[in-house]
Amino acid sequence: MDVRAAVAFEAGKPLSIETVQLEGPREGEVLIEVKATGICHTDAFTLSGDDPEGQFPAILGHEGAGVVAEVGPGVKSLKPGDHVIPLYTPECRECEYCLNPKTNLCQAIRTTQGQGVMPDGSSRFSLNGKPILHYMGCSTFSNYTVLPEIALAKIREDAPFDKVCYIGCGVTTGVGAVVNTAKVEPGSNVVVFGLGGIGLNVIQAARMVGADMIVGVDINPAREALGRKFGMTHFVNPKEVAGDLVPHLVELTKGGADYSFECIGNTQTMRQALECCHKGWGESIIIGVAGAGQEISTRPFQLVTGRSWRGTAFGGARGRTDVPKIVDWYMEGKLNIDDMITHTMPLDRINEAFDLMHAGKSIRSVVVY
Amino acid sequence: MDVRAAVAFEAGKPLSIETVQLEGPREGEVLIEVKATGICHTDAFTLSGDDPEGQFPAILGHEGAGVVAEVGPGVKSLKPGDHVIPLYTPECRECEYCLNPKTNLCQAIRTTQGQGVMPDGSSRFSLNGKPILHYMGCSTFSNYTVLPEIALAKIREDAPFDKVCYIGCGVTTGVGAVVNTAKVEPGSNVVVFGLGGIGLNVIQAARMVGADMIVGVDINPAREALGRKFGMTHFVNPKEVAGDLVPHLVELTKGGADYSFECIGNTQTMRQALECCHKGWGESIIIGVAGAGQEISTRPFQLVTGRSWRGTAFGGARGRTDVPKIVDWYMEGKLNIDDMITHTMPLDRINEAFDLMHAGKSIRSVVVY
Repeated sequence: MDVRAAVAFEAGKPLSIETVQLEGPREGEVLIEVKATGICHTDAFTLSGDDPEGQFPAILGHEGAGVVAEVGPGVKSLKPGDHVIPLYTPECRECEYCLNPKTNLCQAIRTTQGQGVMPDGSSRFSLNGKPILHYMGCSTFSNYTVLPEIALAKIREDAPFDKVCYIGCGVTTGVGAVVNTAKVEPGSNVVVFGLGGIGLNVIQAARMVGADMIVGVDINPAREALGRKFGMTHFVNPKEVAGDLVPHLVELTKGGADYSFECIGNTQTMRQALECCHKGWGESIIIGVAGAGQEISTRPFQLVTGRSWRGTAFGGARGRTDVPKIVDWYMEGKLNIDDMITHTMPLDRINEAFDLMHAGKSIRSVVVY
Repeated sequence: MDVRAAVAFEAGKPLSIETVQLEGPREGEVLIEVKATGICHTDAFTLSGDDPEGQFPAILGHEGAGVVAEVGPGVKSLKPGDHVIPLYTPECRECEYCLNPKTNLCQAIRTTQGQGVMPDGSSRFSLNGKPILHYMGCSTFSNYTVLPEIALAKIREDAPFDKVCYIGCGVTTGVGAVVNTAKVEPGSNVVVFGLGGIGLNVIQAARMVGADMIVGVDINPAREALGRKFGMTHFVNPKEVAGDLVPHLVELTKGGADYSFECIGNTQTMRQALECCHKGWGESIIIGVAGAGQEISTRPFQLVTGRSWRGTAFGGARGRTDVPKIVDWYMEGKLNIDDMITHTMPLDRINEAFDLMHAGKSIRSVVVY
């Protein structure tokens, strides 16, 4: 079938809106009509050429929501008409990782997903007979796409696509880091580095679980009002702190953070996030993705005196199980997504979304098909 | 009263056996007769002058066992005749740290202990009228010493002093790292870097809790037989590994360690210990103390893909609560201490214990008074 997609032909160039051919679903696969997709920093990272694993030509996009159009042979858990969110971290419920309660990093289709193809090793997308690669197993910058059954979370039908698409990446990454990875307890003091889309979701999840002090750290003063809207109780602009940031945060939190979250991807702030944690029990969670080859450092004394250094991917969420719960939390008013979606546009203006992101003008832009 | 003690008059010099004056216990303090004391690397570290917090003249020693001789006013939990192990990490059961189940780092007397004095700011030891400092709140290189009540664990009376003194530091540090800090589950794969006194205790605790594969890593081939005696199932000598150590360990453990323990104090092996952990859930625990100013590093990707970097001090043990349990485990035959105590000597030969340690000839030397 013919579909409309924004194709990334090469690194550093704008996306190109094309009519592309899409094959139907094979064994265990599902064809979905994408109704909306967010544009995430990870898409921009790959498009820029800085992603060492980036491959072209490809159809980017990994933060979508849509409706099942057709299921391939053997698909049991989904049927046409079901509302779904694509999962770049699938949940097969059978591999060594899915069967270990300590991780969400299902490895069932990892190799082929990394190669930009479906589990059988081939692409469903093509243009003029030449294959175009899938991206993060999702390719939501197309109005139709094909995914394995294990990479689709079935969600309630009253949830608006143009909002819950954000749960496909940013919301789950931030909220899940608090709920699944850190397991923040009521009364905790939390410090959040970086008040972009991820940091704001960390903040609102910390509020949801009953955190006490929620400190946001950002060099952009315009982020203070936004942070407070989502539950931030204290704002720290490192540029306005006299002296070192770490002792300032330790003093502010009366001994250090019970939990800190790094949502920037900067190895220096990762170190600060660890070192501002409370002696004895503070845990720092790395969410941001650092540049290739960069390293984090600290004195081991920081760990020996009781701090823990951890990380999280997709918020520690098992997508088919946890994403529908987060959709519920949004629909019940426990999470605010509407105020994070600052821009909406049709597919043919998708390049504007990248411009807005790079200019720091958007929290999240969403393409509505 | 006059007591016999090995005094450290200055860094880098042998200890000097002296008759020293000891004041009796004040409010909340306890006078104990020390029956035996281990000689630990930390004593040697301070004596060498490398310890930036080392102060002289002092009476070192922090790994003892003895009998209560006299209690000061207000002491309620101990009476003359009770058998005790001194605790360099006390347990007041009242401070913010003691009341937080996530840590054992009681802060009640931390400042004065670091200054080498009792909680009231003065020393009980003197020589010719000049004060001599306490050390780690213990000073077990004296046949009598004074400690705060909160820094003494009451133990059963049938436990031999010349063995259970080792529970005052090394045994609890290694066993506690497994039991309290990592909480290793039955069936886990464990990798232990450094098969000295701490590493061997990690190994025997891993065996006690039902670990599956217990891999010991040491560049000294003589440690293999010793490791196997305590439960090690696989030995890796990095000097005999062709290629990099980390992938070798990952392959040996079929994907990586569920838990790794660094018992050396080397920042390079700390990194290897983290990176040999299993993706998704491996935890690395730093036990060894690195040199002043040294730093650990890794790529944040190691953490984002599910590994945790942590540390432990005194094995995460709350001394008054946990040390008596470890004494029980030894008396019940669950832990082997006898084979770790390779040398025993009287106080006036204590300097030989340091020589044996530096020559790598002892696991643990014990002075019996």
